[in-house]
Amino acid sequence: MGFSVRDSNDVKLSLAGRAWCWARQLPEKLVAKVVGVATMANKLARDDPRRVVHSFKVGLAITLVSLFYYFQPLYKSFGVSAMWAVMTVVVVFEFTVGATLGKGFNRAMATLIAGGLGVGAHHLANLCGKIGEPVLIGLFVYIFAAASTFMRFFPKIKARYDYGFLIFILTFSFISISGYRADEILELAHKRLTTIAIGGSVSLLINSLIFPVWAGEELHNSIALNMEKLGLFLEGFGAKYLKTTEDETNNSKDGNNKSSFQGYKSVLNSKNVEENMANFARWEPGHGKFRYHHPWNQYIKLGGLIRQCAYRIDALNAFCKPDIQKPQKFQEEIREACTKISLESSKTLKKLGSCIRATTYPSSSVNAHIVSSKAAVKSLTCFLTSSSSIYTTQNSDELLQIIPIATIASLLIDIVDCTEKIAECTYDLAILAHFEKVNPKPENNNQVSDIVDNQCPEIVITIAELALITSVNPVDDGNFTVGNSDSQHSSDD
Amino acid sequence: MGFSVRDSNDVKLSLAGRAWCWARQLPEKLVAKVVGVATMANKLARDDPRRVVHSFKVGLAITLVSLFYYFQPLYKSFGVSAMWAVMTVVVVFEFTVGATLGKGFNRAMATLIAGGLGVGAHHLANLCGKIGEPVLIGLFVYIFAAASTFMRFFPKIKARYDYGFLIFILTFSFISISGYRADEILELAHKRLTTIAIGGSVSLLINSLIFPVWAGEELHNSIALNMEKLGLFLEGFGAKYLKTTEDETNNSKDGNNKSSFQGYKSVLNSKNVEENMANFARWEPGHGKFRYHHPWNQYIKLGGLIRQCAYRIDALNAFCKPDIQKPQKFQEEIREACTKISLESSKTLKKLGSCIRATTYPSSSVNAHIVSSKAAVKSLTCFLTSSSSIYTTQNSDELLQIIPIATIASLLIDIVDCTEKIAECTYDLAILAHFEKVNPKPENNNQVSDIVDNQCPEIVITIAELALITSVNPVDDGNFTVGNSDSQHSSDD
Repeated sequence: MGFSVRDSNDVKLSLAGRAWCWARQLPEKLVAKVVGVATMANKLARDDPRRVVHSFKVGLAITLVSLFYYFQPLYKSFGVSAMWAVMTVVVVFEFTVGATLGKGFNRAMATLIAGGLGVGAHHLANLCGKIGEPVLIGLFVYIFAAASTFMRFFPKIKARYDYGFLIFILTFSFISISGYRADEILELAHKRLTTIAIGGSVSLLINSLIFPVWAGEELHNSIALNMEKLGLFLEGFGAKYLKTTEDETNNSKDGNNKSSFQGYKSVLNSKNVEENMANFARWEPGHGKFRYHHPWNQYIKLGGLIRQCAYRIDALNAFCKPDIQKPQKFQEEIREACTKISLESSKTLKKLGSCIRATTYPSSSVNAHIVSSKAAVKSLTCFLTSSSSIYTTQNSDELLQIIPIATIASLLIDIVDCTEKIAECTYDLAILAHFEKVNPKPENNNQVSDIVDNQCPEIVITIAELALITSVNPVDDGNFTVGNSDSQHSSDD
Repeated sequence: MGFSVRDSNDVKLSLAGRAWCWARQLPEKLVAKVVGVATMANKLARDDPRRVVHSFKVGLAITLVSLFYYFQPLYKSFGVSAMWAVMTVVVVFEFTVGATLGKGFNRAMATLIAGGLGVGAHHLANLCGKIGEPVLIGLFVYIFAAASTFMRFFPKIKARYDYGFLIFILTFSFISISGYRADEILELAHKRLTTIAIGGSVSLLINSLIFPVWAGEELHNSIALNMEKLGLFLEGFGAKYLKTTEDETNNSKDGNNKSSFQGYKSVLNSKNVEENMANFARWEPGHGKFRYHHPWNQYIKLGGLIRQCAYRIDALNAFCKPDIQKPQKFQEEIREACTKISLESSKTLKKLGSCIRATTYPSSSVNAHIVSSKAAVKSLTCFLTSSSSIYTTQNSDELLQIIPIATIASLLIDIVDCTEKIAECTYDLAILAHFEKVNPKPENNNQVSDIVDNQCPEIVITIAELALITSVNPVDDGNFTVGNSDSQHSSDD
C-alpha cells in the first residue's frame, strides 16, 4: 500500500515535472517550429518566385470580385448571389493559365447545361402536383447524380472534364431542388450563371495578364530539363565512373556535383505531372512561341521515351554504388568505347534539350553526336570480335570482371538506341511545331569535319545508316556530307 | 466569268452534297457513338463493379440530404442554407472512405476556423466606421487569401490539407464579406457549419456503411498485385525467353499470356496512385485487418522498392524484343543458372505478394526461394570462375554472344538484390502491422529439405548468410535448419 502511494506520488510528480518541462520547452519548440516554417517558406519562394506572385494574384482577384458586394449599384443587380463570384475565383484560380481556363470553362459550361436541365426538370415536376413534385425532382436528381458520377470514371472525361461533371451535379441539384421553394427559379439560374461568368473572367484576366504561367511552357521546359538531366548523368557516368584521363578534367565541374548527377531520379516519376500539364496546355490559346494547336501529344510521347531512357540509366546507376566492386583491370579499349558512348549520348541529349528550350531545329551537331556514339558502339563490338586473343592470356578471375563491364556496355548500347529514338521524336516535334530553323554555326561544321582517329580500323558506317539519321532533319541537308569513307565519325571532345 | 459561275455552282453543289452525305451518315455515326460509349461503360462497370455501386451511393446521399429542402419542419431551421448540405455531399463524396473522411474533415475544420476568424474580422472592421469597414475587410481577405494560397505550396500541406486551405479561403471570404450586408453574421456562420456537418456526416455514413471501399485495402492489394505482376514477368522470362525444356511445360499456361507478361509496365508509374492512397488511408479508422495506425509508410517504402525492381525488369525486357538477336549458342550452364534465378525470384515475389494479400507472415518457403536464387547466383559466378577453359575453345563470334547473356545475368543478379530488399521490407511490414502468424505447411518443409543436384560443386552458402536471411523472420526459427553442408540449396521446380 505504502509502495503504491509512493508510486502514484512519483507518477504525479513526474507528470507535474513533465508538464513543467513541456511548458518550459514550449517557447523554444514554438520558435523552432516558426523558424522551420519560415525557412521552408523562404525556400519555396526562392525555388520558384512565381509562387509568391501567384498568391498575391489570388488575393487581388478575390478582393476585386468582392467589390460587387461593397458597392450599392453592383450589389443591387446580384444581391447575395454575388458571393458566387467570389467562390468561383477561389475555386477556379489555378497556378497555370491552362488549368484556370479549363476549370473556368468546365464550370461555366456545366452551369449552363445543368441550369437549363434543372429549370426543365422543375417545370416538368411542377405538372405533377404538390405531392408528385418532390418525388419527381428527387428521382431526377438521383438519376442525374448517379449517371454523372459514373461518367467521371471514363478516362477521357476524368482527364479533361472531371470538374465539369462535378459542377453539373452540383448546379443541377441546386437549381432543381431550389425550384421547390423559390419562385423565380429562372432568375436564380441566370444569376448563378452570370456571377460564375464574372468570377471566371476576373480570374482568367488576372491570371493571364499579370505574370502568366503557361502550362504549355512548363511542359516544354520540363521536357527539355529532363533531357538535360539524363545528359548530366551520362556525362558524370562517363567522366567519373568510367574515369578517363583526358575527359576528366573537362567535365569535373559538372561531374563532381553529386546532386545533379542523381537528378535523373525525378524523371522516373514524371508521367503524371507531364500528362496533367499537357491536359492544361490544350486549353491555352497561342502564347509566345506556342500556337493554339501546338502538338502537345508529341511531348507526351517524348516524355515516355525519356522515361524509358531513365529506366536504363537507373539500372546503370546500380553499378555506380560503392559496394559493387569496380573492375580493377578494366579493358582499356572497352572502357574507352564506353566512355565515348556515354559522353556522346550525353552531348546528344543535352543538345537536344537546349534545342527544345530554344525552340530551334536540332542542329547538325546532334546528328554528329549520334553518329559518333554509334561509331563507338561499332568500335566496341568490333573490338570484341577482333580481339579474342586477349582472353586466352587472361586468368579466370578476369573473366568474372568482364561481366559488369559487359553489362554497362549493353546498357549503354541500349541507351544509344533510346537516345536515337528521343532524337527522332524531337525532330518530329520540331517539324510539327514549326520550330525555328537556324543556320548551323560554323563551329558545328568544324566539329563534323574534324575526324578523330579511330580505335577500330574495321568500323564502317553505311551510307544507308547515315541517310537514315540525317534524312529526318531537312535543314541539315548538304551541311554535313559523308562520303563512303570507311572510318568517318565526328566528335567535339 | 462563265467558268467562275460554274465553279461556284460546283462548290455549292458539292457543299450541298457533302451536307446531304453528312446528314445521311449522322444517324449511323450517332449510333456508333452511342454503342462506343455503352461498350466503354459496360467495360468500366465490369472491370470494377464498385464504380456502379459508388454512383448509386452518390445519388442516394444527395437525394437524402435534399429532404431537408422538401420537408417544412426541416426547412424551417435552415432555410436556403440547406443547399450547403447538398453541395457538401456533391463535393465531399469520394470513391474511398479515406478520401471522403479526409475531405469532410478538411471542409469541416476549415469552415470552423475560417468562420471564427471571419466573424472576428467582421467585428474588428465594424469598429472602423462605414468607410473603413470595407477597406479593412478587403485587406483582411487579401492577406488571408494570399497567405493561404502560398501555404498550399508546402508539400506536406498539399498532400493532406490542400482542400482544407481552399475551403478556408472560401469560407473566410464568404463570412467576412457577407458581414458587410447581412446583420446576423453569427447565425450565417453557424448555419454554414451545421449544414456542412450534416452533408459531411450523411456522405460519410453512406460511404462507409454501404459496400465501403477502403483506401488502405486498395493500397494493400495494389502492392500485393504489383509484386505478383513482377513475379509473372520473371516467370515468363525464365520460361519463355530463357526457354528450358523442363520448366516450359509447367509454366506455359501463364507464360503464354502476353498481356500478363507485360503487366509489370503499370508498376513503373504507380508512385502517384500509391502516395494518394496512403494519404487517404491515414484518415481511415480501423477496418477489417487494418488498425487505425497501420504502418502505411511502410507500403510507400515497399512500393518504391518494387518500382526499383520494375526498372531493372524494364531494362531486362529490352532484351526480349524480337529484333535483338537471341544468343544461339547459349552457354547451357549460364542459361540454366539464369533460368533458375529468374524462376526463383519470380516465386519469391509471387509468394510475398500472396502473403501480403492474406496478411500473413511470409512463409519459410519465401526464404527457401531467396536462398535458392542466391545459390543460383553463386553457381553462376562460380561457373564463370572455374571454367575459363571453355573460352579458349571458343571462336571470337561466341565472345560477342557472351555480352547479352552477361547483361541478362547481371540484371538478374541485381533483381535478386532487389527481391531480397523487397522481402526484408515485407518482413518489416509483417512485424509492424502484426500480420497473422501461420504454421508453415508441411509441403513447404518438404521443399526446403528437397535438395536438388547442384550444377556447381564449389557452391558454399555460409551460415552467416543464411542467418541474415532467416533472422528477419521470427516464425521460421527452427522450421528450417541448414547445416554447414557445402552444396545445400532448395527448390520446388
